Amino acid sequence: MLELDYDNMLATAVGEEYGIAPTELAALMPRCARIHADLMARHAAGELPFYDLPTDRAMLTTVQKLADELRGRFENVVVLGIGGSALGTTAAFRALGALHHNLLPRKKRGGAPRLFVQDNVDPAGFGATLELLEPHETLFLVISKSGATVETGSQFAIARHWVEERQGDAWQDHFVLITDPEQGALRRLANDSGMRSCAIPSGVGGRFTVFTPVALLPLALAGVDIAALLAGAADFMTRAMDADLLANPAYLNGALQYLAYQKGLRISVMMPYSDRLRDVADWYRQLWAESLGKRMSLDGEDIFVGPTPVKALGATDQHSQVQLYMEGPCDKTVTFIAPRDYGVKVPIPAFAQLPELAYLTGRGMDELLRCEQQATAQALTRNHRPNCTIWLSEVSPRTVGALFYLFEVQTLFAGALFNVNPLDQPGVELGKQLTKKLLLHGAADAATGSSD
Amino acid sequence: MLELDYDNMLATAVGEEYGIAPTELAALMPRCARIHADLMARHAAGELPFYDLPTDRAMLTTVQKLADELRGRFENVVVLGIGGSALGTTAAFRALGALHHNLLPRKKRGGAPRLFVQDNVDPAGFGATLELLEPHETLFLVISKSGATVETGSQFAIARHWVEERQGDAWQDHFVLITDPEQGALRRLANDSGMRSCAIPSGVGGRFTVFTPVALLPLALAGVDIAALLAGAADFMTRAMDADLLANPAYLNGALQYLAYQKGLRISVMMPYSDRLRDVADWYRQLWAESLGKRMSLDGEDIFVGPTPVKALGATDQHSQVQLYMEGPCDKTVTFIAPRDYGVKVPIPAFAQLPELAYLTGRGMDELLRCEQQATAQALTRNHRPNCTIWLSEVSPRTVGALFYLFEVQTLFAGALFNVNPLDQPGVELGKQLTKKLLLHGAADAATGSSD
Repeated sequence: MLELDYDNMLATAVGEEYGIAPTELAALMPRCARIHADLMARHAAGELPFYDLPTDRAMLTTVQKLADELRGRFENVVVLGIGGSALGTTAAFRALGALHHNLLPRKKRGGAPRLFVQDNVDPAGFGATLELLEPHETLFLVISKSGATVETGSQFAIARHWVEERQGDAWQDHFVLITDPEQGALRRLANDSGMRSCAIPSGVGGRFTVFTPVALLPLALAGVDIAALLAGAADFMTRAMDADLLANPAYLNGALQYLAYQKGLRISVMMPYSDRLRDVADWYRQLWAESLGKRMSLDGEDIFVGPTPVKALGATDQHSQVQLYMEGPCDKTVTFIAPRDYGVKVPIPAFAQLPELAYLTGRGMDELLRCEQQATAQALTRNHRPNCTIWLSEVSPRTVGALFYLFEVQTLFAGALFNVNPLDQPGVELGKQLTKKLLLHGAADAATGSSD
Repeated sequence: MLELDYDNMLATAVGEEYGIAPTELAALMPRCARIHADLMARHAAGELPFYDLPTDRAMLTTVQKLADELRGRFENVVVLGIGGSALGTTAAFRALGALHHNLLPRKKRGGAPRLFVQDNVDPAGFGATLELLEPHETLFLVISKSGATVETGSQFAIARHWVEERQGDAWQDHFVLITDPEQGALRRLANDSGMRSCAIPSGVGGRFTVFTPVALLPLALAGVDIAALLAGAADFMTRAMDADLLANPAYLNGALQYLAYQKGLRISVMMPYSDRLRDVADWYRQLWAESLGKRMSLDGEDIFVGPTPVKALGATDQHSQVQLYMEGPCDKTVTFIAPRDYGVKVPIPAFAQLPELAYLTGRGMDELLRCEQQATAQALTRNHRPNCTIWLSEVSPRTVGALFYLFEVQTLFAGALFNVNPLDQPGVELGKQLTKKLLLHGAADAATGSSD
C-alpha cells in the first residue's frame, strides 16, 4: 500500500558528502529506541491522543450521523477556517473528490454539495465567494479549536449577518461549530444557542486534526469515504508504531530527514507526481514547519532550528524548480510521492503530422508521468542530490489515510530528534498581539503603509 | 503605483548580523553601474528583446485581432503548456479575472469563455478536464516555444484525437499554435496545415514570455484588459532602466536579495497578502529559481549557486509557515506584496453573542488583512529577520503589469550579480534524456518502481 524507497538518500547512491552512511543511521539507533519508548509511554498515558483517532468509532459515528442529517439540504458547504482547520480538508478533498467537483452538475456529484474552503480574510476573495452563493442553500462550518481565531471569527460574523439578512432567525440552521469540547467562545455559543456543533477531541492540536471532525465532517458532506480514510490510517498504525527503525517508514523518514539536516540540507522539498496529491504537500508544509521550526530546545536553550518545507508538483515543476534542484547549492532533499496506479488510462494516440512524438504513440500518459518521476530521481542522484520516493499503490481513501498518518508520526518523531516540542507554536503570538494593537490603535499608521 | 519599502532589510532595523549596512550597498554600486551599462548595451544591440515587449504595438494588435476573431465561438479555452507557457497566464488570470470565473454563468463572465490551464500530464487531471468539456465548444491553445515539449506534445495528441472523433476534419479550427516564429515542429505544422498560430518573439525565453501571445492570447480571450497590462509595464520601464540603484526598485531589490544571500539567507520567501496575487508568487518562483540556480559561473567555474524561492500567502500562511519564519534558522528573506486598496469593502458586523470580537466591529476585512501584514513584518523585524514590502496602489492590470516587469528586470540584474547566465537552464537536459530512455527501453523497470 505504501513503501518508502530511500536508496537515493544513502552515501552509496549520492556520495559521502551529502549521502547518509549506514554507520550514521546505526549510530542514531539507540537514540531512536529511547524516543520510541518515550512516545509509547506518553501514548499509554493518554498524552498523545492523535495516535488513536483512526480507530475512534464513536467519533466516526457522530460525524456520519451529523452528515446524514445535513445531507441533501444544502447546495454549498463553506469551511470557515485557517491553517490546520483548512489544510487537511483541502488536501484530502483534492486527493479523493472529483478534480472539478464544483463545476459538475449536482447529479454528477452524486448529490453532494459544492465545497468551498475559505482560509483567508481577503475581502476580494471572501466577497467573491459570498457573491457566488445563495444564503438559503448554503451551510457554513465554522472551525476553530480555540474559538478565538480572529480570521475565522471575522468570517463568521460576516457570514452570519449575510444569512440572517435573508433567513432571519433561521440563520442558526446554516452553521455548524467545530471547536473544543468544553472551552472557548464557539463552545459557549453552541451551548447557549443550541446550534449544531462537533467536538475536536481534547489534546489534539490544530495541525494534527485531519482525522477529527475538522476535516471529516466537510469531507463526509462532500462525498468522501471517511470510514475508508480512517481505516487506511488504522491499517498503518502497526507499522508506524514499530520499534524497529528500518521497519517503520515514519521513524525512518524522520531520521533520514534529521540526518540530512545535520549535513546542511535544510530545505525539504515534497514533490508528488500526481495532480490529486498536490495539496498533500501543502498540508505537510504546515505540519513540518510549525512543528519543527523552533527557537528553543527542550532543554530551554536557543537553537533556532527547523527545516524549511517546500511544495512542488511533478511533472509541472520540472519546468520551474528542477533546474535549481539539479545545479544550485546542495541544500535540499527531495521527497517524491508517486502512485503506482493513476486510476485511469489516457493513451497517447498517433499523430502523423508530428513525427517527433512517434515514440510516445500507444503509451499511456501515466507511463510518461512515471518515467518523468524516475528520470528526475535518477538525474538528481547522478548530481549527488539526496532524494527518496514514497510509493502509493494508488490514490484512494485508504492510501491517503496511511500517508497522513505516516507524516504525523514522522513529525512527532523528528521533533524528538531535533530536541524541540513539536506540539506548540510560540512564535506566532507576537504577530497576533501586534495585529490587535494595530487594529485598536494604529489604523492611521496602517493606512500610510509604514511598518515601523 | 508600486513602491519598494526595504527599511526592514537594513542593519538599522534587524541588526548587523543579517541586516544590510549602507556601506555594503554603497560598496556594490560600482559593480551595479557596470552591470547596468552592460545590460543597456546588450539591449541596444537587440540581445534582450523582452525589455521592449510592453511597447510592441504590432504584437498587441495581432493578439487582439486573433482574440476578436475567436471571441464568442467557444465556451471553453484550454491552455496546453507547462512552465513558462502556463505560469504567467495562471498568475495574471488569478489576479485580474473574476476569482470564481469558471463557476459563473456565461453572462456574468461578460460572455468570455471558461479558462483551463493544463500544465501537467497526470491522466487523472487531464482526463477529468476532457470529461468536463464538449469538443464542439472547446478551443485549445497549444503553447511550446521549441515545439518539442514532450508534455505539451502528448496533451496535443490526445486533445486532437478527442476533437477529431467528434468534429472530423474541422478539428483544426479548435487549435491555435503558439510557438517559435520560424522553427520547430509546431511551426512546421502551422505552415503545412494552415492552422491558426501566433509567434513567440525570437530571443524571448520561456520564463520571460508573460508579455507575449503565450499569456496575452488566453488572457484576452478570458476578458482581461491586456492593453492595460502592457501599459502598466511600459509605464514602469523608465524606473526599471534607471541607472541609479536607489531609484530603480528592480535593481535595488535584486541587489538586496544578492547581499542577503551572501549573508547566508538563501531562502527567498514571497508572501502576497492578497488572494488575487497568490499565483504571482508561483510565476516568480520559476523566474527566480530557473534563472539563478546554476552550477557554472559566467567564467566557467563550478559555483553551485542560487536562492530557493518559496511561495506563501498572507494571512493564510501565518497559520502554517510563520512560526518557522519567526523562530527557525535565520536563513530567509521575506518579501511581502501588499495592495493598499483591495477594491472591495467587506465590513465586519456586530455579533452580540461573540463579545470577544467586539473590537473588530465596523472595521473592514481589508483593515484586518492590512494590519496582519504589518504586524507580521514588525514581528519578523523584532526577531531580526530581514523583510521588505512591495506596495501596490491596487490590484489592476496596470499594477500587475508593472510588477511582472519589475521581477523580470530584477532577475536579469541579479543574474549578473550572481555571475551566472539567467537565460539558460542546462540542468534539466539530463532528466529529459533519461525520460526518453526510460520510455523507450525501461518500461519494465519503471513498472517495478526501481529508481536505480
